[in-house]
Amino acid sequence: MDVHAYLRERGELVDGFLETILPTADDVPATLAGAMRHLVFPGGKRLRPALAFAGAEAIGASPERALAMAAAVELVHTYSLVHDDLPCMDDDEERRGRPTVHVVYGEAVAVLAGDALQALAFEVLATHGARGGSLERALGALRDLARAAGAHALVGGQVDDLEVEVASADAAFIESVHLRKSAALIAASIVGGARLGGADAPTLARLQRFGEAVGVAFQIADDVLDRDEDGACSLVRVLGLEPTKRRAEAFLEEALAEIEDVGERAEPLRELARFAVRREI
Amino acid sequence: MDVHAYLRERGELVDGFLETILPTADDVPATLAGAMRHLVFPGGKRLRPALAFAGAEAIGASPERALAMAAAVELVHTYSLVHDDLPCMDDDEERRGRPTVHVVYGEAVAVLAGDALQALAFEVLATHGARGGSLERALGALRDLARAAGAHALVGGQVDDLEVEVASADAAFIESVHLRKSAALIAASIVGGARLGGADAPTLARLQRFGEAVGVAFQIADDVLDRDEDGACSLVRVLGLEPTKRRAEAFLEEALAEIEDVGERAEPLRELARFAVRREI
Repeated sequence: MDVHAYLRERGELVDGFLETILPTADDVPATLAGAMRHLVFPGGKRLRPALAFAGAEAIGASPERALAMAAAVELVHTYSLVHDDLPCMDDDEERRGRPTVHVVYGEAVAVLAGDALQALAFEVLATHGARGGSLERALGALRDLARAAGAHALVGGQVDDLEVEVASADAAFIESVHLRKSAALIAASIVGGARLGGADAPTLARLQRFGEAVGVAFQIADDVLDRDEDGACSLVRVLGLEPTKRRAEAFLEEALAEIEDVGERAEPLRELARFAVRREI
Repeated sequence: MDVHAYLRERGELVDGFLETILPTADDVPATLAGAMRHLVFPGGKRLRPALAFAGAEAIGASPERALAMAAAVELVHTYSLVHDDLPCMDDDEERRGRPTVHVVYGEAVAVLAGDALQALAFEVLATHGARGGSLERALGALRDLARAAGAHALVGGQVDDLEVEVASADAAFIESVHLRKSAALIAASIVGGARLGGADAPTLARLQRFGEAVGVAFQIADDVLDRDEDGACSLVRVLGLEPTKRRAEAFLEEALAEIEDVGERAEPLRELARFAVRREI
């Protein structure tokens, strides 16, 4: 299969839905509508939505079943980038070749737009998550997403990343940050998509392990691409470039082994995993 | 009934639950655990949790049915205060007689602690909202809370409050900010508590109108107490002190009329409404 075509097609699917759920200047203050949309459109690779769709497809469900999860994970991912870019955090003025939200709309509106994107993620799942499926699955996907977005995962990893001293950031610590800061949301995307699609508990547990391993590998690949060898939480700093690349491959192999016997319908999931780890952008 | 005793008892009920759900330094980075707890404990009047409990009691359900909603609304309220106090927003160094979160933990951790408190609100409802009730009611309460916390309500009101010029802030505009910034979450507390308790749709609609009117009256009372007569969104600036007090009373009367025939079991709701509007702190 062509992973780029898959990303493009599933990206269009989630984009169409995001367009309908993001507020406009008719509903909310114009600056807020603009700030919320600024980083959502045109957006990035839409990898997390694609993984949510592929999670549903891996268990034989239609991708549409995962639509609410796909949109919700992209909203959480986007809000976290808006807040990461703030002057008090990474202080980035550019992302994806455009000025960051706080550069265009000011810091206060950037904080608030991020807050509203997070609330919208949960509103979308609560409103559309049960469509074609069950209330129990919608509530489960919502709980998984909230946990992946919270103190135990995304936010906790971010705090450790901000605070750690280079001297105490060894490989195990860095991989624990990667697991919480990146892999938890990636795993929630896949598991949430499969959950809305109707997966049973053993399958969800395997997809969780698959997603965590892919997510850590994805973030290690980022360390390799960034070449930010001085960063406290770059594995390249600790292991060197070639061993870091091998570490990413090892996590990828571990992930693929988890879903080895799922068959043809997990092919999008496998190809997305390979793409996430071996991409060059 | 003694509204102060009610607030104290229901406050203890929600505090006990909040204590079990807020992360500790054993689960998450110590600064994050500290920053998340800083404004939650000892907290304020716990008015929103009390309204959630009273909403359940008004339809004959036990207050425990509303416990997840009570905790969730307090977490959303608290996160919004943490972000409001940031230097790029209201730049407040003190709240409830203590230094604000960013003063103690720094701006970055304050932003992140707020983010994690919001995620936790939804995790709590997704995990405990259906206890003793139904999945459908839990999902409905969650959707109401997400909408009250989002761009159409809390965040949108906050953006308008930040951006409006004094010259264009007339009474109608100010009351629209009050409705979104304060009343939406107060209404969601009451409606959510009643929803988890098993209320029917007509009752929920009446409680929504009750909650919105009480919430606007509550915020007008804040304008009166603050005496911040120069604030763009203070009704006192536009109407003067005595007419503003009468306006708050009018909203209170409108609210009480909505639930006139609900009987004795709505007495906590009525007393909390009177307290919210006539309090002197």
